Amino acid sequence: MNIQQLTASIYQKRSFLCVGLDTDPAKLPAGLQDNPKDIIAFNKAMIDATLESAVAYKINTAFYEAMGAQGWEIIEQTLAHIPPTHFSIADAKRGDIGNTAAQYARTFFETYQFDAVTVAPYMGRDSIQPFLDYQDKTTIVLGLTSNKGAADFEQLELSSGKKLYEQVLTTVASWGSPDQLMFVVGATQAAALKNIRQLIPGHFLLVPGVGAQGGSVEEVAAAGWTTNCGLLVNVSRGVIYASNGEDYITAAKAAAQGYQRQMQAAFEKLQG
Amino acid sequence: MNIQQLTASIYQKRSFLCVGLDTDPAKLPAGLQDNPKDIIAFNKAMIDATLESAVAYKINTAFYEAMGAQGWEIIEQTLAHIPPTHFSIADAKRGDIGNTAAQYARTFFETYQFDAVTVAPYMGRDSIQPFLDYQDKTTIVLGLTSNKGAADFEQLELSSGKKLYEQVLTTVASWGSPDQLMFVVGATQAAALKNIRQLIPGHFLLVPGVGAQGGSVEEVAAAGWTTNCGLLVNVSRGVIYASNGEDYITAAKAAAQGYQRQMQAAFEKLQG
Repeated sequence: MNIQQLTASIYQKRSFLCVGLDTDPAKLPAGLQDNPKDIIAFNKAMIDATLESAVAYKINTAFYEAMGAQGWEIIEQTLAHIPPTHFSIADAKRGDIGNTAAQYARTFFETYQFDAVTVAPYMGRDSIQPFLDYQDKTTIVLGLTSNKGAADFEQLELSSGKKLYEQVLTTVASWGSPDQLMFVVGATQAAALKNIRQLIPGHFLLVPGVGAQGGSVEEVAAAGWTTNCGLLVNVSRGVIYASNGEDYITAAKAAAQGYQRQMQAAFEKLQG
Repeated sequence: MNIQQLTASIYQKRSFLCVGLDTDPAKLPAGLQDNPKDIIAFNKAMIDATLESAVAYKINTAFYEAMGAQGWEIIEQTLAHIPPTHFSIADAKRGDIGNTAAQYARTFFETYQFDAVTVAPYMGRDSIQPFLDYQDKTTIVLGLTSNKGAADFEQLELSSGKKLYEQVLTTVASWGSPDQLMFVVGATQAAALKNIRQLIPGHFLLVPGVGAQGGSVEEVAAAGWTTNCGLLVNVSRGVIYASNGEDYITAAKAAAQGYQRQMQAAFEKLQG
């Protein structure tokens, strides 16, 4: 699935919800054990429960990498359960020199057939280009993140007067079209979102930080909306850990539906 | 193995050579096939051939991740073959928000018991702290890299007059002591190395880019030497692909010995 197809799905469903599968084996709900079989079952249940409300799934590779080789088998089986009607993202934040970046691109676009992968910008163009070379895939580059540490470097002021993340956004945007390139912009940075939308009016933003990290759908939509919606809001803990009791599936379903309703309201308000 | 033990090994061997195991299945020498058994055999042969000349090994995870779950089994078996007399580095360049960074730290320091891992700085302190929390392990943060793309963001000038990478080096250095924190500084940036050495006089530098990327041991040593050597020079392709014929083991051994001799010469010149 590419960005154009994702956009059609967003308009059809009146939802720009991405569910983050950051499955921590230590936090599985009642009745499930810390083993690959149960983790896969949990992920599949989360996908099934949210399929109607969500348009995308984001697999945070770190949680699976910590399980060793079997974690990658869980990634593979989870990814296989995401239907082609939904956009799949490997949240891996890779970044390295060209020949190594090419291996990472191959990992996520060929070995595992994700639609998209997140990439770190620090090392510059040749660390990002190998991902962009897959023109039917989507590269999602870190812009301004939702964590406290974003203040340490991302928000530093350059001699040009711009902030580093602003320079990253505009420079990287010149390397790839809105058809194949998105940016990560944290929901906790709603004030900055409006400014970012002006800097890169055409590109989709993947917005984490709604829910557990404190951002709200309404604020994000108001600040980040553009002509083709241009937003993909990720919620991880707020959906998959909506309950740690036996009702975890219905709770996840209800949580995702709640986010979809907030997004539908934003649609009606902003799309007119 | 920690940095103090690594330093002792460097002094004993008069070598600060790290061999990079960036094993590309498409580039295996004559007689070896693209399968896990042969890749492991190749890696073990490269370790055995260079054990006397090298003090450290760096496994570039990208090349193994591209093989899927079995790639991680190759990492595990390769790592198990590195003796405790040698320093082991996962070149993974991870970087994410705190709870995710903690999973990456667990991956490389617990699931796989590497001595060190490379980390990207873009997302700031909470993306690095979970690695530093392992006080007997070493965190290696990207400073100034050896690729062309380093000019895109790393070398941008800040309003303070400093370059971004200079700010990254000094800020991150304030978060961790030279006993547990190193920085990646590319050998192709020899002119910058001298300046970097003044900014962070006490920290070890992991220096890639010698050999295939064009840097030289002599220049790196002259510019980056500090009281405890403070240098770990990585060579990947220049050692493991020294020959693609049947003599690949003796060629790798000879290449590593050649680098060790250059390092010994630098020792005699600089250590007095």
